[in-house]
Amino acid sequence: MLAPAYATGGDSLARIVMKFGGTSMAGTERIRRVANIVRKQQAAGHEVAVVVSAMAGETDRLVNFCREANALYDPAEYDVVVASGEQVTSGLLALTLQSLGCKARSWLGWQLPIHTIEAHAKARIESIDADELIASMQRGEIAVIPGFQGLSEDNRVTTLGRGGSDTSAVAVAAAVKADRCDIYTDVDGVYTTDPRIVAKARKLKAVTYEEMLELASVGAKVLQTRSVGLAMKEGVRVQVLSSFIGDDAVPADDLPGTMIVSDDEMNALVENGDMERQLVTGIAHDKNEAKIILTRVPDKPGAVAHIFEPLAQASINVDMIIQNVGRDKGETDVTFTVPQADLARAQALLEDKREEIGFNRIITDSKIAKISVVGVGMKSHAGVASTMFRALSDRGINIQAISTSEIKVSVMIDEDETELAVRVLHTAYGLDTDDEAA
Amino acid sequence: MLAPAYATGGDSLARIVMKFGGTSMAGTERIRRVANIVRKQQAAGHEVAVVVSAMAGETDRLVNFCREANALYDPAEYDVVVASGEQVTSGLLALTLQSLGCKARSWLGWQLPIHTIEAHAKARIESIDADELIASMQRGEIAVIPGFQGLSEDNRVTTLGRGGSDTSAVAVAAAVKADRCDIYTDVDGVYTTDPRIVAKARKLKAVTYEEMLELASVGAKVLQTRSVGLAMKEGVRVQVLSSFIGDDAVPADDLPGTMIVSDDEMNALVENGDMERQLVTGIAHDKNEAKIILTRVPDKPGAVAHIFEPLAQASINVDMIIQNVGRDKGETDVTFTVPQADLARAQALLEDKREEIGFNRIITDSKIAKISVVGVGMKSHAGVASTMFRALSDRGINIQAISTSEIKVSVMIDEDETELAVRVLHTAYGLDTDDEAA
Repeated sequence: MLAPAYATGGDSLARIVMKFGGTSMAGTERIRRVANIVRKQQAAGHEVAVVVSAMAGETDRLVNFCREANALYDPAEYDVVVASGEQVTSGLLALTLQSLGCKARSWLGWQLPIHTIEAHAKARIESIDADELIASMQRGEIAVIPGFQGLSEDNRVTTLGRGGSDTSAVAVAAAVKADRCDIYTDVDGVYTTDPRIVAKARKLKAVTYEEMLELASVGAKVLQTRSVGLAMKEGVRVQVLSSFIGDDAVPADDLPGTMIVSDDEMNALVENGDMERQLVTGIAHDKNEAKIILTRVPDKPGAVAHIFEPLAQASINVDMIIQNVGRDKGETDVTFTVPQADLARAQALLEDKREEIGFNRIITDSKIAKISVVGVGMKSHAGVASTMFRALSDRGINIQAISTSEIKVSVMIDEDETELAVRVLHTAYGLDTDDEAA
Repeated sequence: MLAPAYATGGDSLARIVMKFGGTSMAGTERIRRVANIVRKQQAAGHEVAVVVSAMAGETDRLVNFCREANALYDPAEYDVVVASGEQVTSGLLALTLQSLGCKARSWLGWQLPIHTIEAHAKARIESIDADELIASMQRGEIAVIPGFQGLSEDNRVTTLGRGGSDTSAVAVAAAVKADRCDIYTDVDGVYTTDPRIVAKARKLKAVTYEEMLELASVGAKVLQTRSVGLAMKEGVRVQVLSSFIGDDAVPADDLPGTMIVSDDEMNALVENGDMERQLVTGIAHDKNEAKIILTRVPDKPGAVAHIFEPLAQASINVDMIIQNVGRDKGETDVTFTVPQADLARAQALLEDKREEIGFNRIITDSKIAKISVVGVGMKSHAGVASTMFRALSDRGINIQAISTSEIKVSVMIDEDETELAVRVLHTAYGLDTDDEAA
């Protein structure tokens, strides 16, 4: 059920995990602003834990040191080096909170500990021993926890991979059974689409975990995808909100961000009249994919496996796939997308397998974009896809490929038409607000 | 007894702890040079542990962050922040050693652990659990250990105070029962006096712990005093040598530094003819003291206690003390020295106690220097002090105060005469070498 936090603007006493990213922690002045935001939550009577990233730029500096020391670095020692960035900011935030008169202390990954599987530099959190932490929070101490880091079974430092602090925050929230996990970012919530493209984009009061996963993975880079998956699995209520709300930071209940909730909670919201039921929640776009066409592939069983197995083995994510049978009998063109960053590597791998696959030409194109329409509402309503196709075709936008999931329809178009397509669809699904977004 | 290391230039297989300071660790290029020095020791068949400082400047940067965050910082959180500097360099040195084909791993203070008493920011090492460490060294892995840091009984990060990495190295050497603790610095050994003042200063093959303590505490800033005391207590043989010996670093046995040894070992050295017996080992100078004169203090029991108790309580070290009875009956002038950095604080404390102490005026002078003549030889030989007084008086240098210990005579003189006094004494005790020092 919905806690009253964002629904009514009030907030009963709660246990809250707050997370601040590297931009918010960049320097002692900004850390002071963060400390003021944290203090207000505690002053409101809540039990508070804070998860912090390293200062913006610091992790890059440390990663560069590792590369200079050893191009093929040992991830166990890499973790020792890079985990220090969050250690510094957690100590500094604890000091700053103390200077504001709060009781506060840092809890490093090995101190709690945050147990992870041993895969250094890309560890996964297995469990967090939270008893001491909860006891400390109940004594009124603000717990400051470095994100991104943990402890392996053999007592060594691990890190979760870049952007892992969101996941740390959600895992801590699950471990302390927090009422809410507030992720402070440099945006103030999740919008119906990118406000830099559509001035009439609306901030969403709430989205479901599944919608957020689709929005995050197609380019609405608000939260790390893995953290949303964990929140869904553990039932952690996540709120995305901004840490840049002026020097006189206001508490979260005065300026709510976007809540990320379960389907049930979303239904309750709609029934209470807090949210309107929408067919489509948001429009996402992604310019970071590239298209590969293999021409005249033999149209026989197993041919497609020859294409995609080597790519999977090289950890290259293939997204949209279309097979155009036609032209010559027994042959087909296969079109698919890969991340632009992997395009050269994918091309080289496919050239290596030219004989096995038996294609004629490789054609590549990185000037494409993927536009996605996302919404839980479309589970029970037909016609979402056809609305999309008609709206785009009415404006002369050519659809090169289509893919769908239960709550998403994506199309591939020419990159130059990205902004036009997003605006057209935002209007077509009735998402435009009357007020222009800030 | 003497191991053959520096006596003959050979070296049987040994267990060695090496320590490198912040200048040696300043950046990945310098760390690579350190790694090459370490590798040569391992290649010679030795078991090696390395203790490292933070990159030069890094600890200052972190201390400044703490001050900005909270002027009255909590030393427990200060320790969390500043200990990160050594964590970074230990990971980077392990990575660099690996890139040279060595097996290496870092062992953080909490991992061994290095147990300390709980006094944050000025902790003392109580014990080191070294079993795992020794086993790792015996497997041929180079152990890289961050200096300066430890773990308190309540599982929190501690640091040993500035310069604490020397002490870490000696403590690790004691714990692993090392044959030698090699401290690499930016000088190549201990000299009879400062070579910047006396070109004919000689590098000493060996000094005793007691001599080194006197030399270190009076301004020959080669080693942290505390580390020398610990080495004496634990019987750790320490060698001071330079890490700046060209890109093609030569092993320690080819270019020996100065060994710091027990009295017995020193006697053995002299009997073997490896060292000449000297009355005086070295001449030290210290310009960092200031003089305070309290005039017309009542000459009655307890008066002096009124002066020095408040200073002791404020942790201000008082060194030379002279009482000049005379002038008016029942009154005396009291002269003493304190570190220049504490002069203002001492003056304020004394002004507060003016009535209790009953002095007339406070006169201060920071333009003084302390010149010390140090040597175990003077234990059994008279005449060292009178040689000093005569040599100085022959050159018209006025002695303002005198203090002595078993192996040291110190005088206070005008700061402007420091260099002259050092040169005069170096010649007077026959310490000048024929070759000019490098």
